[in-house]
Amino acid sequence: MTGIDFWYEFASTYSYPAAMRIEDVARERGVEVRWRPFLVAPIFVAQGWRDSPFNIYAAKGRYMWRDMERICARLGLPLHRPDPFPQSSLLAARVALALAPQTRAAFSRAVYASEFGEGRQIGERDTIAPLLDRIGEDSASVLERALSAANKEALKAESAQAVALGLPGAPCVVTGDGEVFWGNDRIEEALDWAQNAR
Amino acid sequence: MTGIDFWYEFASTYSYPAAMRIEDVARERGVEVRWRPFLVAPIFVAQGWRDSPFNIYAAKGRYMWRDMERICARLGLPLHRPDPFPQSSLLAARVALALAPQTRAAFSRAVYASEFGEGRQIGERDTIAPLLDRIGEDSASVLERALSAANKEALKAESAQAVALGLPGAPCVVTGDGEVFWGNDRIEEALDWAQNAR
Repeated sequence: MTGIDFWYEFASTYSYPAAMRIEDVARERGVEVRWRPFLVAPIFVAQGWRDSPFNIYAAKGRYMWRDMERICARLGLPLHRPDPFPQSSLLAARVALALAPQTRAAFSRAVYASEFGEGRQIGERDTIAPLLDRIGEDSASVLERALSAANKEALKAESAQAVALGLPGAPCVVTGDGEVFWGNDRIEEALDWAQNAR
Repeated sequence: MTGIDFWYEFASTYSYPAAMRIEDVARERGVEVRWRPFLVAPIFVAQGWRDSPFNIYAAKGRYMWRDMERICARLGLPLHRPDPFPQSSLLAARVALALAPQTRAAFSRAVYASEFGEGRQIGERDTIAPLLDRIGEDSASVLERALSAANKEALKAESAQAVALGLPGAPCVVTGDGEVFWGNDRIEEALDWAQNAR
């Protein structure tokens, strides 16, 4: 089965609608989605940014929030602007990476729904642990695995690979032949590309 | 007839495919396009940029050029990367604004085709004058009007209005009810919005 890599960052606004809908778009086309959580911070730091560009550049930020309102309304997704924004995504990313592929997608969608649908603090264990329990995982043991030195290193390696692939931000879809598609609004195009390159 | 404002910048890469296809997308929906040339520089300067963000931020720049190749290939448009990039867009914007609405669209498409299709220097009168002659305008008199103090001020006012509208970049479509849609990839969404708001 043709597969694509879906690179996503838990603090990223546009990763929210992308994560909530990518499996549906992929299923229609018979494409398999590999969920690749990563930290976008190294990419931003390489560009000289110490905060979200949506906070640094006011016009971009105002536009993005209105755009998110329209996107979420169209998809029937609730939108609660996180405070503070961006949220700390380190814990959620470590946990997602520590999970098996089958549960990683369900956990990731639950994090996004909690963060952008309900406005919860995703940097806190008290937010993350119940999400794990709800998808049938033992939160204590998953958290222990997530916070192990090996898993921390694995997440660093993933984020370094995102830089090496030239990802300009999150979310991105990378096809088997190495094409990068950036943004929630490019998911269809990316999956069409993957399907045609088969 | 429902109308939208199409705000475009001659130096802007994504404005090229947008300008070449927006009339077709609008015609299908029975929406009228008002062509609004402006200078994006004041927006960039307000964000602290003295150059194109695609030059300042290497990962964004590399991504954009590959993305443009894919977009142009799909639309059957030639793509010649302008050198230098960005081109000086001041003369072309002044000329476009000095033209009547009926010829402004044809001239604007001719400029984009020359810049991004053939790699010509659009900051030079020797490039611009023949484009005017070819669409049936008297280039000498249009250039005189374009370089008048009144027209220079008019272009400044348009660019100031773009800032006031909160445009985050170019191209943008602004609907009658004030919604801003940024990017070549949002043209369909913008025109659907205009059509539904009717």
